[in-house]
Amino acid sequence: MLHQEKILNIPAIRRMPTYLHKLLKMQAEGKVSVSSTELAEYMNIELIVVRKDISLTGISGQRRIGYDVNELIRYIKAYLGWEETIPAALVGAGSLGTALLGYDDFEHYGFRIEWVFDSSPDKIGTEIYGREVLDVRQIASQFAVRRPEIAVICVSNAAAQEVADQLVASGIRYIWNFANVSLNVPPGVVVQREVIAGGLAMLAVRRKMDRKRTGSNLLQSVRKKLFHK
Amino acid sequence: MLHQEKILNIPAIRRMPTYLHKLLKMQAEGKVSVSSTELAEYMNIELIVVRKDISLTGISGQRRIGYDVNELIRYIKAYLGWEETIPAALVGAGSLGTALLGYDDFEHYGFRIEWVFDSSPDKIGTEIYGREVLDVRQIASQFAVRRPEIAVICVSNAAAQEVADQLVASGIRYIWNFANVSLNVPPGVVVQREVIAGGLAMLAVRRKMDRKRTGSNLLQSVRKKLFHK
Repeated sequence: MLHQEKILNIPAIRRMPTYLHKLLKMQAEGKVSVSSTELAEYMNIELIVVRKDISLTGISGQRRIGYDVNELIRYIKAYLGWEETIPAALVGAGSLGTALLGYDDFEHYGFRIEWVFDSSPDKIGTEIYGREVLDVRQIASQFAVRRPEIAVICVSNAAAQEVADQLVASGIRYIWNFANVSLNVPPGVVVQREVIAGGLAMLAVRRKMDRKRTGSNLLQSVRKKLFHK
Repeated sequence: MLHQEKILNIPAIRRMPTYLHKLLKMQAEGKVSVSSTELAEYMNIELIVVRKDISLTGISGQRRIGYDVNELIRYIKAYLGWEETIPAALVGAGSLGTALLGYDDFEHYGFRIEWVFDSSPDKIGTEIYGREVLDVRQIASQFAVRRPEIAVICVSNAAAQEVADQLVASGIRYIWNFANVSLNVPPGVVVQREVIAGGLAMLAVRRKMDRKRTGSNLLQSVRKKLFHK
């Protein structure tokens, strides 16, 4: 993981599902080709960035007529390893967990949450989006028969490490962690920590840059008035 | 925004809240200094990446004794423009909106959700984490008196554009969009689109790399057995 951090184009990878979302929509609308310009407008990023992103998938560009929508979908899915369905488990059926269960796009990404666990007696036995909520103490016994490839942790920060330990002990190797804690896991287990505030930081920096620009524009106009009038 | 995309170190900015989370915890525990090695271990990234990230804030490094915790917190907050409290509004009090309302760390980032709107009669008038849910049709009248700097959109994909139009008409310039749609906004309005599946893509690529490695290791061991035995 330390090694990968260096060589992966993280922003590009994070953008892939957004391209896929757009392309799947175009596919559903019967569109057969898409230009990088169209994608750049949709993504609100520069054309050169779109072209770089897409070249990562290994597709050969047909610049004049654009990319074939179906082919580009296949290439992005192959790039992400999303051709097959990946079974997943969710631990923590609170508001965030429920939001993830209701996220429509996952099914298109071959990501299927098949198990839902919670520790609350109020939730165990109920159904959320058609999945029965199981007792978190059943993780080991459930996964003894058949286990998911990915587990999503949506429990409180205080409970997250214990849940991670249970998951690792049950053979889970990929954890998508929404709790705001750094999990200790043995080598070979991959944790993707999701920090919701990361996007807020992006927005905050943009806001700060705007303010600086507005500030310097103001300063410039004051200068102009003072010296060039 | 198009211009900024080029010059911003996006992964570094997204990591800032995670550093801040760790540093605030250390501050609460009474720790006064932190080494980049400690931060690298916590973040699970390489030392050189941590040093680059931190140098972005403009703090001068004291490599032998580490960084002063309080000072580093100040520099990160200044870098993000998080010294002052930014009032915000949330539109959509569903499961994801509720999860955001319950996100403890926002208060440390000076991000305060003061308005909550929803369109559902079941929710309007109820309280979520101490905030009263207002009718979404009240956005304009509410913001006529005093308005937030940032609005968070957590409504359905189908309703998102209409909500964005209302927000922009009410003078909102910064939108944090959790709906899975590309919003059309006039120039000068900044939209940070949050695609939850971005993290899943990261995890998927790591999984694919592991599989390739395991595959090639297998191949190598087969080769060894065949040719070097």
